[in-house]
Amino acid sequence: MEMSLQLKKILISNAFFLIAEFLSEAIYLSVDPYMRAYEHLRQLESVFNGSQIAKIIDSRSKQYPLDTYVIGDFGWRSLTTGEEEAKDPELSIRILPDFAKLPLSLRLGVLGMPGSTAYFGFLEICEPKAGETVVVSGAAGAVGNHVGQIAKIKGCTVIGIAGDDEKGKWLVDELGFDHFINYKKPYLAKTLAQYAPSGVDCYFDNVGGEISSTVLSQMNLFGRVSVCGSISSYNADYSHLPKATITQGFIVMKQLKIEGFVVHRWDNRQNEAFQQNLQWINEGKLKYKETVTEGFENIFKAFISMLQGGNIGKAIIKV
Amino acid sequence: MEMSLQLKKILISNAFFLIAEFLSEAIYLSVDPYMRAYEHLRQLESVFNGSQIAKIIDSRSKQYPLDTYVIGDFGWRSLTTGEEEAKDPELSIRILPDFAKLPLSLRLGVLGMPGSTAYFGFLEICEPKAGETVVVSGAAGAVGNHVGQIAKIKGCTVIGIAGDDEKGKWLVDELGFDHFINYKKPYLAKTLAQYAPSGVDCYFDNVGGEISSTVLSQMNLFGRVSVCGSISSYNADYSHLPKATITQGFIVMKQLKIEGFVVHRWDNRQNEAFQQNLQWINEGKLKYKETVTEGFENIFKAFISMLQGGNIGKAIIKV
Repeated sequence: MEMSLQLKKILISNAFFLIAEFLSEAIYLSVDPYMRAYEHLRQLESVFNGSQIAKIIDSRSKQYPLDTYVIGDFGWRSLTTGEEEAKDPELSIRILPDFAKLPLSLRLGVLGMPGSTAYFGFLEICEPKAGETVVVSGAAGAVGNHVGQIAKIKGCTVIGIAGDDEKGKWLVDELGFDHFINYKKPYLAKTLAQYAPSGVDCYFDNVGGEISSTVLSQMNLFGRVSVCGSISSYNADYSHLPKATITQGFIVMKQLKIEGFVVHRWDNRQNEAFQQNLQWINEGKLKYKETVTEGFENIFKAFISMLQGGNIGKAIIKV
Repeated sequence: MEMSLQLKKILISNAFFLIAEFLSEAIYLSVDPYMRAYEHLRQLESVFNGSQIAKIIDSRSKQYPLDTYVIGDFGWRSLTTGEEEAKDPELSIRILPDFAKLPLSLRLGVLGMPGSTAYFGFLEICEPKAGETVVVSGAAGAVGNHVGQIAKIKGCTVIGIAGDDEKGKWLVDELGFDHFINYKKPYLAKTLAQYAPSGVDCYFDNVGGEISSTVLSQMNLFGRVSVCGSISSYNADYSHLPKATITQGFIVMKQLKIEGFVVHRWDNRQNEAFQQNLQWINEGKLKYKETVTEGFENIFKAFISMLQGGNIGKAIIKV
């Protein structure tokens, strides 16, 4: 580790001012579905993107002193050198706030980016009202389970869609979802109609494709759809995208409003989501689960497993 | 005609008050794409829905005196009896305003429902800004050509999509569209990318399906889509709907906003659209074209022809 810092020092020796550097070591790495969508933008030999919780293990910086815990978009690497005033905005780094003895790793999940995604993406776009029926696809993922729980807090009937009965049991028995649908079983449309006899008012979409076409076909007048992900189709090439039943007829007849978002839209309100999610956790209204994979060398395996639906809740790597 | 009125009189003889009835005769009937979508809701032996321009040919009503011209949702029939205070809201009737010697039939098109649809559906949902690139599908239809002209008035670059080069010639040479794409020719995506090198900001969708998937794949960040129709898929049965390339990936990555609408949403602002469209016509900024079919007996033929793309501009029947 000292060597790495030495090397870095040599490389920046032509700087005109003293740089307040630090060296950090990863403790937890995040694997998230969005990474698949951006993967094709990365070049060979570049660092794969992603957030991590890290500890400062050497420092010339007053801002990031030794032994501080930070969260940063450092990508998939164990050691990171940085400067106080980072010039690369992707290396954004924040000192972890204290959140009352809860695990540090939550800052990658329920108290981090996925938590903000659930909070803003659902509340701002779906605008749920008490008594309405909400459907969440990818319901057992980090964002999906969180959205369903917020919908319950807001007094909605919540139907979760995922591909595994064990996930469904967790959603209904532990998180309080009203219904669960395993999309791998037949009769998705029929089962949805049975669980949502008055139609669907809000749909939080993590998957896209045929599941979403089915949900859209059962929506109510002026229904709202928040499109958070399209895990069924993360592919760079248009001609290889899958096809699904077209939805424009339902969009017109039911006057639906569909909006896609990226959570950075609300970057300046992140603290609002953090504080509210923290409060809900402390009140016992918001539960969380992590699927932890041990060892840096297993990060690819964990990533693929998550894309195949192997995780329940937030997928993280413990380095 | 006198017999019809007599018959009606007998049928309502048990009414407790004197009813101010009128009898009207159709002059122009409207055929519109939306009728296909609602057709399955109609029962055998019911009257097919639709607006008409009619002349009052007998009357006991002070509100609708003899020889008045009215527009009403009387459906596909030549003779209609009505009352001053209609109890069936589908029989809504308005006396035709005077619009400066323009043809009466325009009240079914550019100065009627399709004109309001173009005006509100485009401006309220797409919120176009000068300099933006706008794509219109079904561009040579009553609503589509009108939307493209409004987009030109607002200072946008306008690309029209339709299925016939003669239509394209009209759109570009006479209406001032910047580009035309014939979707029946190959390379829709490639041609669109060529005409919209900086991407598409607004899409006014009359057709749905694969054409719309292609347009959505080329939209810019925060693009807006107004879904007015889905003529590619007007079918009552979900399992028989066509499939198209899924779009959720683009919706997320580009944070698109897609909204379907039915023009009745803006019923209380109809006069605004009427006055603005009338002004644009009088200023020479808004042109119109009608495809007129003569004879009540040809209404089915005209309807089918319109659904197959046989019309340019507004399709109407001259009785």
